[in-house]
Amino acid sequence: MATTVVRSHAARRRVLQVTNGTARWRDDMLAVEEPVEIRLYTAGSPAYMPVAVTMRTPGHDFELAAGFLYTEGILTDVADVRTIAYCGDVPGGSMGVRPEERYNLVNVYLREGVTFDAARLDRHFYTTSSCGICGKASLEAVRLMGVQPIEDDVRVHRSVLETLGDRLRAAQRVFDRTGGLHAAGWFRADGELVALREDVGRHNAVDKIVGHAFLERKTPVRDSILMVSGRASFEIVQKAAVAGFAVIAAISAPSSLACDAADDFGITLVGFLRGERFNVYTHPDRVVLED
Amino acid sequence: MATTVVRSHAARRRVLQVTNGTARWRDDMLAVEEPVEIRLYTAGSPAYMPVAVTMRTPGHDFELAAGFLYTEGILTDVADVRTIAYCGDVPGGSMGVRPEERYNLVNVYLREGVTFDAARLDRHFYTTSSCGICGKASLEAVRLMGVQPIEDDVRVHRSVLETLGDRLRAAQRVFDRTGGLHAAGWFRADGELVALREDVGRHNAVDKIVGHAFLERKTPVRDSILMVSGRASFEIVQKAAVAGFAVIAAISAPSSLACDAADDFGITLVGFLRGERFNVYTHPDRVVLED
Repeated sequence: MATTVVRSHAARRRVLQVTNGTARWRDDMLAVEEPVEIRLYTAGSPAYMPVAVTMRTPGHDFELAAGFLYTEGILTDVADVRTIAYCGDVPGGSMGVRPEERYNLVNVYLREGVTFDAARLDRHFYTTSSCGICGKASLEAVRLMGVQPIEDDVRVHRSVLETLGDRLRAAQRVFDRTGGLHAAGWFRADGELVALREDVGRHNAVDKIVGHAFLERKTPVRDSILMVSGRASFEIVQKAAVAGFAVIAAISAPSSLACDAADDFGITLVGFLRGERFNVYTHPDRVVLED
Repeated sequence: MATTVVRSHAARRRVLQVTNGTARWRDDMLAVEEPVEIRLYTAGSPAYMPVAVTMRTPGHDFELAAGFLYTEGILTDVADVRTIAYCGDVPGGSMGVRPEERYNLVNVYLREGVTFDAARLDRHFYTTSSCGICGKASLEAVRLMGVQPIEDDVRVHRSVLETLGDRLRAAQRVFDRTGGLHAAGWFRADGELVALREDVGRHNAVDKIVGHAFLERKTPVRDSILMVSGRASFEIVQKAAVAGFAVIAAISAPSSLACDAADDFGITLVGFLRGERFNVYTHPDRVVLED
């Protein structure tokens, strides 16, 4: 098998770190998020089956592909695998593939005579909302959906941001009972809670909030903050951009691509929101620090 | 529109709570995890387009469906939606649907003359590994893959469990730099770390671990613990079952369906692992409490 190429799993971004209202710029390392597509080839055929597109952190990509195919029941024996390679590793394998996509395409080649249950893939195919297979293409895909940069000159005072975590938790009645739910909150810029939704899936909680706004004919929203209880991923930023949220606040870290998407779509992205400390990753103009 | 039926988002389970080696049985509330399928109907046609199957917590399901379709660019105007309903809400709508699946099928009916971009769905279809659309069917689907209950009489001493969290974090070099990565660790029953993998996606981290074992011809694994940095979902238990892990340990809560799957597949599921405190949700026989 080809050697695994471990690309960087962390990316440097400039961030405004706020502590008790005092702000300073510093460099921060973010977890890299990039799409990867897994393709399955049977021997003797140049055609492939697109198995899955998923957002992942680069590194151990061949294990990711093998583990996915094995746990989904598509691969059962490692002896059935001739090799696993990035697109560019095989002569002719990188035809039509942009250089920045090369390491986001993992090809799994089966040995001669080995087949797989294609019907299983029909149900098991999973993908992100990204049409491309690199971060740049993912951003382009959102633009192609007609999503425009947010032009909402709302301002949010740091005293509001500092209390959002408590407000979200206070509203999470279920949280106390199970400790197992992600929450998404729709807040006004003055801190008023419009709606709270919970789910075992982070994206689902956000879909419920956005669906609520959509069904109530309130999209695109204005003057609004989307608060999430965990991390901020590319897909959460994408959903917020479609719905018109000018500010996203997350208790935990954003990914590199979440940051890039927020920058692109004019969204103020706040992360590591812990009481009087928080980071502003993009468009800090909307955050008011003065008392 | 039909009224939203909020089914329970929390389910009661019996759990062995261990504190400093002292165990007692108690009732615990877990977040419910159940699959939902979103189906899109154009006016005048009984045929539907299966849009997505996702694991979710019941409640606000119509918002979930609307929010998903809107943020994926399939719906743009709420006026295009005639109604959203569960299968059983519409005469004839529940034909062939099992009673336990009724509230896991959300039908979105478009108004006359409204079409959608089917090509967009091709790329955006997302699903879980579940073939069914209720928890029971999800478990059946895993059995149909040929996954057998784990028959590994490995024992894990509580002193090992109590240190796993620290061992996992110590091994997470990247964690310190980004704070944004999920981790999965493969440990031996004596606490030895075999492999650690990280990713922005929880399932990806587990796929990388399982793929590592598979490529090294070590599946099904024995004498092994799968440790995850976050919550335990159905899919994580399913992946562990395929790979042969007898014990799963999670820092946070398991879902209801993760619990049911672990019970079914003979896996010992440990959750809320915080130093000297942890909960054993299923098959506690493998956990040794005596000094």
